[in-house]
Amino acid sequence: MIEAAKHKVTVIGSGNWGTTVAKLVAENTRDHPDIFEKDVQMWVYEENVILAKDSPHYDAAVGDAPQKLTSVINTHHENVKYLPKIALPTNVVANPSLVDAVKNSTILIFNLPHEFIGNICKQIKGHILPYARGISCIKGVTVTDDKIELICEFIGEALEIYCGALSGANIANEIANEMWCETTIAYNTPPCDLVNGTARNGAAVEEHRDSRGQVITTQLTPIPKNYPTLDHDEFHKLFNRPYFTVAMVSDVVGVSLGGALKNIVALACGFVEGHGWNMTAKTAVMRRGMLETIQFAREFYPETIQEKTFWEESAGWGDMIVSCTSARNWRYSKMAVERGVSIQEIERTELNGQKLQGISTSREVSSFLRARGVEDKYPLFKLVDGILDQKVNVEDVPKLFRK
Amino acid sequence: MIEAAKHKVTVIGSGNWGTTVAKLVAENTRDHPDIFEKDVQMWVYEENVILAKDSPHYDAAVGDAPQKLTSVINTHHENVKYLPKIALPTNVVANPSLVDAVKNSTILIFNLPHEFIGNICKQIKGHILPYARGISCIKGVTVTDDKIELICEFIGEALEIYCGALSGANIANEIANEMWCETTIAYNTPPCDLVNGTARNGAAVEEHRDSRGQVITTQLTPIPKNYPTLDHDEFHKLFNRPYFTVAMVSDVVGVSLGGALKNIVALACGFVEGHGWNMTAKTAVMRRGMLETIQFAREFYPETIQEKTFWEESAGWGDMIVSCTSARNWRYSKMAVERGVSIQEIERTELNGQKLQGISTSREVSSFLRARGVEDKYPLFKLVDGILDQKVNVEDVPKLFRK
Repeated sequence: MIEAAKHKVTVIGSGNWGTTVAKLVAENTRDHPDIFEKDVQMWVYEENVILAKDSPHYDAAVGDAPQKLTSVINTHHENVKYLPKIALPTNVVANPSLVDAVKNSTILIFNLPHEFIGNICKQIKGHILPYARGISCIKGVTVTDDKIELICEFIGEALEIYCGALSGANIANEIANEMWCETTIAYNTPPCDLVNGTARNGAAVEEHRDSRGQVITTQLTPIPKNYPTLDHDEFHKLFNRPYFTVAMVSDVVGVSLGGALKNIVALACGFVEGHGWNMTAKTAVMRRGMLETIQFAREFYPETIQEKTFWEESAGWGDMIVSCTSARNWRYSKMAVERGVSIQEIERTELNGQKLQGISTSREVSSFLRARGVEDKYPLFKLVDGILDQKVNVEDVPKLFRK
Repeated sequence: MIEAAKHKVTVIGSGNWGTTVAKLVAENTRDHPDIFEKDVQMWVYEENVILAKDSPHYDAAVGDAPQKLTSVINTHHENVKYLPKIALPTNVVANPSLVDAVKNSTILIFNLPHEFIGNICKQIKGHILPYARGISCIKGVTVTDDKIELICEFIGEALEIYCGALSGANIANEIANEMWCETTIAYNTPPCDLVNGTARNGAAVEEHRDSRGQVITTQLTPIPKNYPTLDHDEFHKLFNRPYFTVAMVSDVVGVSLGGALKNIVALACGFVEGHGWNMTAKTAVMRRGMLETIQFAREFYPETIQEKTFWEESAGWGDMIVSCTSARNWRYSKMAVERGVSIQEIERTELNGQKLQGISTSREVSSFLRARGVEDKYPLFKLVDGILDQKVNVEDVPKLFRK
C-alpha cells in the first residue's frame, strides 16, 4: 500500500502578479485539503527592505535597519514591497531559495518577468520532481527570426515537464483587492496523467500533441498513482475564487498568442487615442488587431489553432479590451503621442527601468514576419512597427481600413 | 432606346443621426455622379425654430420670429436644431413633405426613432417606386411575445421592397465631425437586381431567402435596366467616406440582432461599473453578453445565422464595446446605481422625455424568452430584467459566472 500524497504547490515569482496569484492559490489549497498540501511555497528574490515609521509593521526595536523581504512576508503576511496593504494567507510561505522552494512540488506556477525565465529554468533543472506540472502566468511568446515559441512550451521543453498557461483580462491589484474578474487557463492534460479518462497506467490513449501537432506524450513522466488526478477540475479548484472566475480550455496556442499579440494592438490603440480619436476609432483598431492575431495563429499554428479561444474567452477578446483601454502599453503609447515624443522616449523617462512588453513584441513579430516576406498581410502590426521606427504617422491609421 | 437613369436617394429622418447620414451620403452622391443623382432628399418633420442672436445665421430682419426648420436648413445648410455647427453639403435638400421626399427615389434610407417606423411606412406606402430599395439605420428588432422581427424586414414587408441594415460602432456627432470610425451594412442583393452575377431579366438565379430562410425573390419588383446595378459596390460608394469605413456583408440577422441586444448588455455593464467594479469585470459581462447574443441568434434564426458577423464586424464586437463604454444605456444605468435609484427613475428625471432603448429591449426580449420557457438559458439577459424589476441585486452578477 502506497501512502496517499497531495499536490504541493510552488509559485515562482513574487512581484505584484506573482504575490496575487500566491494569495488566491493559498486560499484554495486551504479550502481543498483533500487535493493540495496547505502550504504554498513562494519563491522570493531576496532583497532588503526598510519599513517606514508609519507602516503598521514598523517595529521600534528594529527601527530603520534593513530586513529581509522573505522574513517580513513570513512574519507580517504582507509583501510590503510588491503588493503592499494586502493581507496574505498565513499559508503563503516566502522562500529565498529557488531550489528549496520547488523541492517536491508537483505544481509549479511560473510568474515572473519574461526575460528571467530562461535562467530560472536552468537553476531548477534537476531539482524538480520529474512528474511536476507547470502553469505559466507569464503571458506570451518568444519570437526570433527563426521561430515563435510559446513561453509555456519553452518552460516545458527546458524542464521536460508539461506546462499550461494562464491569461485573461486581469489586473493584479484589482484581483489582490478581490474585485471580481475572470481568466482562462489552457491545460492540455497529458494522457499519462488521466485516470477516469483513460491512462495513468500505460493504457492506450489518444495521442497527445504539442502546439505544432507533434506527439509528445512519451517524453513525460506520469504523476504517480498515489497522487490525486491533475486535470481541469483540479486546476479549476486551485485557481478559481469567488472574485476570480476561471475557465479551463485546452488551447495553449490561443491563450499564449492572445496574451502576446494584444500588446501590439494596445500600442496602436494608444497612438490612435493620443491623436484625438475616440472609442469608436479605437474599437476599429481592436477589431482589426483581433483579426490579425487570429490570422497569425492560423498561419503559424495551422495544426492546432482553435479560433473560438480568441472570440469567446477572457484570454481573447476580454484581454484585448482591457489591454486597449486600461493597461500599460496603451497608456504610455497614448502619452507619447500627446506629448509629441517617441514611445521609446516615454519608456526611458517614465518607466523607471521597466520595459513595455508591446515594444519588444512588436519588434520581434515584425522581424519574424519580414523574414518570411509576409509583413504586408499584417497591416496593423506593420503600422505599429513603422510608428516605432518613426517612419509612419499615426494619421495614416484610417488608410489601413479604407477599401 | 431607354434613357439612362441614376439612383435617387432619400433620407427619411433628420435627427442627429439622420442628418449625419444625409451629410455623408450627399458627399458621396456628389462624388459619384455616374451612379447617383446629386441632390439627396432629407425628410424633416417640420417645426419652428428661433435663431439665437449669437447664431451666425441670425438675421436682424427676421429677428426672433419663428422660422421653418426646413427653410433654415436649405438656406444656411445647417440643421441648427439637431446637428448644430455642422456644415451640410448644399445638395442635402430638406423637405417637409414625406410623400414628396420619397417620390421617384430608388434608395430610401430610414433613420428615425424606432417607434415611428410603422406610421411612416403607412404614409409612404403607394407613393414609392415599386422597385425602391431600403437601408435601415434604425438599429434592432421589434420583439413581442409572439415573434421577433428585424426592423429592416418589417420595413421590407410593409412596403414590399427589399431593405438592408446599417449598424456599427458609431456615434453620430463624431461622424458629423469627420472623426474616423467604421460600420457594417448588411445587404442581401435580390437576384432580380443582379447584372453581372445573373438575373435582372428573369434568368434563373439562386433562390433568395429572408431571415427565416423563406424564398422571397418573387415578391420583389426588379430595378429597371436603365438604372445602374444596385449591389454591394454601389452601397459602399454611397456610404463609405475617408472618415467612415464601410464593410458590406449579407447577414441582416447578425447586424440587426447585434444592434439590438447590445443595449441589454450595455445596461448590465453600467450596473456593474456603477457598483464599483472596473474594466476587467465589465469585460467579463461584455463577453458573456456576446455569447448570449449569438446563442439567441442561433436559437431563433437557425437557418440563417452567420456567427462571424458578431465576432468580426463593427456591428458585432465593435458596437458592443462602444455601447458598453461610451454610450447612453451604459451611462445612465451606471448613474442609476451610483445614485442608488432605479434606471426607470433616471429615465424620467434625466432624459427629458427620451427613452432608453435598452430598457424596452430588455423587457421585450425577456418576455419573449419567458413565453418560450427558455429564460434560464440566458442568465445575463434574465439578470438585467431582474434588476429592472428591482428583484435582483447587482452584487449577484459574479454568481452568473461561477462554476
